[in-house]
Amino acid sequence: MKRVFKRKILPLAVVTTLALTTLTVSSTASATWGGGKKNKTGVKNMIMIVADGAGQPYYTAYRYMKDDPSTEDLEPTIFDDYFVGMQTVYSHDHEENIPDSAATATAMASGIKTYNNAIGVDEEGNPVKTVLEQAKEDGLATGLVATSRINHATPAAYVAKNEHRGNYDEIANDFYDNMINGQHAVDVILGGGEQYFKREDRDLTAEFVKDGFGYVTTRSQLLQDQSNQILGLFGKDLSKAIDRHEEEPSLLEMTKESIERLSKSDDGFYLMIESSQIDWAGHDNDIVAAMSEMEEYATMFEYVIDWAKQDGETLVVATADHSTGGLSIGSGGPYLFDGNIIEKFKHTPDYMASLIADGASVEDTLKANIDFEISPEEIQAVKDAGSDRKAIDNAIEAIANERVRSGWTTSGHTGEEVPVFAFGPQSERFRGMIDNTLHADITFDILAKNSKGKKRKWDWKRWWE
Amino acid sequence: MKRVFKRKILPLAVVTTLALTTLTVSSTASATWGGGKKNKTGVKNMIMIVADGAGQPYYTAYRYMKDDPSTEDLEPTIFDDYFVGMQTVYSHDHEENIPDSAATATAMASGIKTYNNAIGVDEEGNPVKTVLEQAKEDGLATGLVATSRINHATPAAYVAKNEHRGNYDEIANDFYDNMINGQHAVDVILGGGEQYFKREDRDLTAEFVKDGFGYVTTRSQLLQDQSNQILGLFGKDLSKAIDRHEEEPSLLEMTKESIERLSKSDDGFYLMIESSQIDWAGHDNDIVAAMSEMEEYATMFEYVIDWAKQDGETLVVATADHSTGGLSIGSGGPYLFDGNIIEKFKHTPDYMASLIADGASVEDTLKANIDFEISPEEIQAVKDAGSDRKAIDNAIEAIANERVRSGWTTSGHTGEEVPVFAFGPQSERFRGMIDNTLHADITFDILAKNSKGKKRKWDWKRWWE
Repeated sequence: MKRVFKRKILPLAVVTTLALTTLTVSSTASATWGGGKKNKTGVKNMIMIVADGAGQPYYTAYRYMKDDPSTEDLEPTIFDDYFVGMQTVYSHDHEENIPDSAATATAMASGIKTYNNAIGVDEEGNPVKTVLEQAKEDGLATGLVATSRINHATPAAYVAKNEHRGNYDEIANDFYDNMINGQHAVDVILGGGEQYFKREDRDLTAEFVKDGFGYVTTRSQLLQDQSNQILGLFGKDLSKAIDRHEEEPSLLEMTKESIERLSKSDDGFYLMIESSQIDWAGHDNDIVAAMSEMEEYATMFEYVIDWAKQDGETLVVATADHSTGGLSIGSGGPYLFDGNIIEKFKHTPDYMASLIADGASVEDTLKANIDFEISPEEIQAVKDAGSDRKAIDNAIEAIANERVRSGWTTSGHTGEEVPVFAFGPQSERFRGMIDNTLHADITFDILAKNSKGKKRKWDWKRWWE
Repeated sequence: MKRVFKRKILPLAVVTTLALTTLTVSSTASATWGGGKKNKTGVKNMIMIVADGAGQPYYTAYRYMKDDPSTEDLEPTIFDDYFVGMQTVYSHDHEENIPDSAATATAMASGIKTYNNAIGVDEEGNPVKTVLEQAKEDGLATGLVATSRINHATPAAYVAKNEHRGNYDEIANDFYDNMINGQHAVDVILGGGEQYFKREDRDLTAEFVKDGFGYVTTRSQLLQDQSNQILGLFGKDLSKAIDRHEEEPSLLEMTKESIERLSKSDDGFYLMIESSQIDWAGHDNDIVAAMSEMEEYATMFEYVIDWAKQDGETLVVATADHSTGGLSIGSGGPYLFDGNIIEKFKHTPDYMASLIADGASVEDTLKANIDFEISPEEIQAVKDAGSDRKAIDNAIEAIANERVRSGWTTSGHTGEEVPVFAFGPQSERFRGMIDNTLHADITFDILAKNSKGKKRKWDWKRWWE
């Protein structure tokens, strides 16, 4: 691995102008999905699940949390039967050799290694084609779902092109501006990020609505909406699952609503679902939030697998982009990890810290939100954190980490290979030790085989290469 | 997972007397290995490799250490092509829910879950049959190789029965006393532990020699020895690979010498090779020693795979019993892990610490044994550790961990699932997420299928059940 600055970044405005405005030729009032012939690979639909930050230890911690204490075994989880291997996650970065979500999502979406922070561009800053774009070009319906802002790195890399993940406004623009065959690249867009789509300088939500998309901002609106194409933006980022308020949809609900719409496509669909905040919990070294999000992910995963089993023509792949936080099962010496106690937290430390920072009593807040006997020392430690929300959060996380005995080594990412799960036709191709670029390679290959002999209406490549 | 004390331990002396002296019916001057017919499973020989403590992060750290800095990729390692899945490692312990090497080795050797510290006995303290014993009963040649004392937990669990791994003398006795069909259970025994085999109360080395075994204590003796059956004890425990002195054999040499002997068996062989000290390096949070041992393991692994490829009838499985230390690739925030720098340490921190504790100059010792520019602050930190060997060791380890950016969370084991590698006939049976007991289940099954229709001379079970 060489860390030498190689790329010549084009000024972003030029890339965006060249690439995207050229594509914005026209827009249609509603999607037209194609003819529906049995395809050659056995794969009609593809669902890619990215559990951001969920390296192997997160699955083990989840196993311990779900352990039935009345048996001597540590029970299997919903994931075990679908585990097929692991993937390397390194990026091509000039300064760092542990990857970020932008580079890894670009690898999984486009099959190329690039630098950290790159969204859909290669090391030289050139835009690269994604599997979602290819799927749309081939007539499939497409969707992106996330529990973070939808223009965050992972979903962004499937549809946007930007030299830096932090350019959220420009990336949001790409969700609207990226047109394939005169259609918006993504039919179903569900996540957070309203502030980036409804701005003073541009209201992308109105533009989507003008083009026939449903637009929803609450759970009940989502569940009632009947449009085939939909933009759903539920606040800035969604809450952690155990902190969710009633007008936020769950990841499962967003997934169901997506599949319900996309599966109307006779030519199949490509859907990327990100369980976004496992990573954020890892950055925070927060075992409670991490397992809240693992549970949310597991519930969605189980639904997707069941749906794919019913369907019979759906390839499901789930993986992480990288691991986060250096989580270990056990810390400090003892051979103990109290997974069961994690479920006794009714809210995340962050949630409790906000209440306390806003003036709530430390003791009352902890007792109301934690279902085991808090010790006087634990209460005092949180009081000693003072009034700073972050310090209070850290103090409550410390209670959890000490009780659970979860270990952490970093506030950043780590470089271990991460697990890969797969189910359905072609799933055996993901077996063993693979590289993250293989996701795109296999998906492109399936799409190419499926569309062989079909007339491709539009040569996507001439715009980008 | 229930942690309730269930077992009724028999007084050990009774177990040993009942079980082992009954078996010590006779001994033969040399092994008689059987007729050699093509077997039913395609498997003639089985080589089980246990890389003690080597969870997934150790393989990633090894990948970073072996990375070619002149390329942008993080290159594949020798292990990647043979990666087939992971295994759960939990034990059935009444107090701990992270496993130790005794319980996990018993699981892999006998297919049962037991309590931590148990050597070849179940939760009630009853001896259980091992795959090595079954192999010997079926007429295969057998071997145990380790870089620790050979009566340490992992190899011990394949041949000894003891309520506690710490009863080293009794466990050493079992290596001699455990007779199958009038033959010693293990034909090739190579590792450390001379002090347990040559004691005031009993000299097992002399007993083995009397029964026709070769007995060697140095590398050159090992390489010259011509006996089919051999006991090789190279000091107490072998040194870490990069600290090895010239009269200690490498793991590769012990492996070659084992396979050379065992492969003379027309009925095949069962060989368990433990790369023992990855775990010890993990306990010490010593990235230099850990990678010294990973390199030693990798070199042996490559040889074994190549040998099995040539042979065509050998099943090779490699795995860990558990992970150790909570190693992570990256720590403290930065997205960096300097794997290449690990190879610039010519000796382990332990080795250097011993020299310094014995009076050598801190500065001279560090400069002579570390191939990069040591900073004055690093030298001072080691000087500040004073004259205590352990404190000096920790100070040198801290230099390595900070330079490399390796993170650690515990001086003990961790509970993550660990990787499984397999090659050869029947290797596909180890795919996916398995439990560690499956190693024994599959091995027993292969042995049973191979010996179906063959007359079994001796009903092993009647002695033990």
